[in-house]
Amino acid sequence: MIHFSINKNLFLQALNITKRAISSKNAIPILSTVKIDVTNEGVTLIGSNGQISIENFISQKNEDAGLLITSLGSILLEASFFINVVSSLPDVTLDFKEIEQNQIVLTSGKSEITLKGKDSEQYPRIQEISASTPLILETKLLKKIINETAFAASTQESRPILTGVHFVLSQHKELKTVATDSHRLSQKKLTLEKNSDDFDVVIPSRSLREFSAVFTDDIETVEIFFANNQILFRSENISFYTRLLEGNYPDTDRLIPTDFNTTITFNVVNLRQSMERARLLSSATQNGTVKLEIKDGVVSAHVHSPEVGKVNEEIDTDQVTGEDLTISFNPTYLIDSLKALNSEKVTISFISAVRPFTLVPADTDEDFMQLITPVRTN
Amino acid sequence: MIHFSINKNLFLQALNITKRAISSKNAIPILSTVKIDVTNEGVTLIGSNGQISIENFISQKNEDAGLLITSLGSILLEASFFINVVSSLPDVTLDFKEIEQNQIVLTSGKSEITLKGKDSEQYPRIQEISASTPLILETKLLKKIINETAFAASTQESRPILTGVHFVLSQHKELKTVATDSHRLSQKKLTLEKNSDDFDVVIPSRSLREFSAVFTDDIETVEIFFANNQILFRSENISFYTRLLEGNYPDTDRLIPTDFNTTITFNVVNLRQSMERARLLSSATQNGTVKLEIKDGVVSAHVHSPEVGKVNEEIDTDQVTGEDLTISFNPTYLIDSLKALNSEKVTISFISAVRPFTLVPADTDEDFMQLITPVRTN
Repeated sequence: MIHFSINKNLFLQALNITKRAISSKNAIPILSTVKIDVTNEGVTLIGSNGQISIENFISQKNEDAGLLITSLGSILLEASFFINVVSSLPDVTLDFKEIEQNQIVLTSGKSEITLKGKDSEQYPRIQEISASTPLILETKLLKKIINETAFAASTQESRPILTGVHFVLSQHKELKTVATDSHRLSQKKLTLEKNSDDFDVVIPSRSLREFSAVFTDDIETVEIFFANNQILFRSENISFYTRLLEGNYPDTDRLIPTDFNTTITFNVVNLRQSMERARLLSSATQNGTVKLEIKDGVVSAHVHSPEVGKVNEEIDTDQVTGEDLTISFNPTYLIDSLKALNSEKVTISFISAVRPFTLVPADTDEDFMQLITPVRTN
Repeated sequence: MIHFSINKNLFLQALNITKRAISSKNAIPILSTVKIDVTNEGVTLIGSNGQISIENFISQKNEDAGLLITSLGSILLEASFFINVVSSLPDVTLDFKEIEQNQIVLTSGKSEITLKGKDSEQYPRIQEISASTPLILETKLLKKIINETAFAASTQESRPILTGVHFVLSQHKELKTVATDSHRLSQKKLTLEKNSDDFDVVIPSRSLREFSAVFTDDIETVEIFFANNQILFRSENISFYTRLLEGNYPDTDRLIPTDFNTTITFNVVNLRQSMERARLLSSATQNGTVKLEIKDGVVSAHVHSPEVGKVNEEIDTDQVTGEDLTISFNPTYLIDSLKALNSEKVTISFISAVRPFTLVPADTDEDFMQLITPVRTN
């Protein structure tokens, strides 16, 4: 029967990380619990929603944890409730003791709280991934790639494969990451410093967003292990498992144009604010679009909503080359794209009013390209 | 037809204050608009939800407003949408021009936004309160009184009069403010510095909360005018009208006990944290109560939930006098009471397990008294 004492704040922090994998409204009720596993090495907190699973290990060697383990075991506790109780405790230390089968007493200061738990045997087994040589990435770099691509994945379940982000490693070091919802696409390419085994996986964008929340910037590198239908991101203390999406990701290379007729360089902040104004009124129109007009080197944005009113404005540019053009599109797609850019300037290249246009950062040499499909209007 | 220019940020701030009286889901659609009234003296922004009305005046003399009035008039604009549009404008100044009947053009930097408005004749008339000698109060003091009492008002419409706070001035300077939802009561009494006309009104607690949000701490004093069924709070620029509740407020004086058998002084923060722990488990019990046990000078809190678990804890006290007692109550009432106290220590006085108990600040001489009714348990 479990017995340990631990620093309350560190324990709470670890619980809150694990909690990110736990939904209180899971269709499988047992998955609303956190599994607490106490071994001689430390305490492991396990949570899962069936899609992603997080194992968070607090080592006996971690001095900040002040972990004193007297007796070992496993138990399940209702995650949200348990976290609320722990965070309400008065003292800096808490004592966690199993007093009888699946019943624990938390003691902290003069407060003594008894909670009913569940038998840990009821918890599903998290599939283990056999140890192999991992791909090692800087956490910051991986989070940057996620930030640049995951937003463009679909949120609709009509084509499930498009709800993921396609990660492909070829020639042992060429990484390509693509997401598209068929209206817009975002692609980041880079060359890894070290060789690794090639892979081709589609990771749910929702899992990637959780990854970004769980792996804080103080975790320098992350090891990535692949299995048939799962991927494991691992740091010293955290193991983050996510299911992969099954099926073939569409060939996106053929969608990317290379020849253009009109090219404009904008200040990112200016353009974004202009599109946000346009969106206020375009969302009250039938097709929800803004019209961008390029004429004699002057770029302007126009929205006309018969009910609400209209926007007309000139947008400052750094450079305009090529043909005049009038093109309509959903300003939200452009706003999302500009948010994903880490650069001050953006170059947008057009072919015609009915062909997708591309955005690339104008002041970095990163291989980061976005594509937005226009809307045909009359 | 209106034409003026104004500092965008100051205009936005004024709009956001007026917006507090405007609900976008009002049963009377015209009340989702803001009325903009331009005279030679300045611009007035008017909003109302039928219960409260706010008139916010921006004077031509206010240098921060940079107000330049070219032409006068009135118009109604959809409040939420108009505020979003104004806040999206690129420049520090905006030009507001009515171009044809009920249609305006906002120009700011290179952005030009045309909006459709409505005829100001459609707006209901806000009842005016005839000028009389006002009661003048420090804004801070009035907000403190509201904070100490309004939370105890009822949120149920079953006895509408209890959703208000009872303000009574007697003997020209004795102010008594009371709220109760029949389970708990909060009463603040104070002596005004200047004589005023006596009054006896019941102000909706919701209006008082809005008052506290609208009248920021930089507004030093507020003038209060009374009419039959309305009250007006007025500062230099803001007129805040609210309807009063009709009916007789119950006599609460007879509820307040004076003789007690047990008296305890607690540290407010300690007691509140203890009650918050108790509430975590009491909310999972049938009657939702915590049991407070006073025995041989030791005070302890107990909750037992058959499903979830239990809490047992000793609570530190500064002083315990009188008889032993065991009493049960809803910890939320005690938590709310302690939040309303501005003191470090609280004295709680009990008669018996079935009679209401009182809370008073232990370290100030303010006349501030709260009452909580216990719950009978078996």
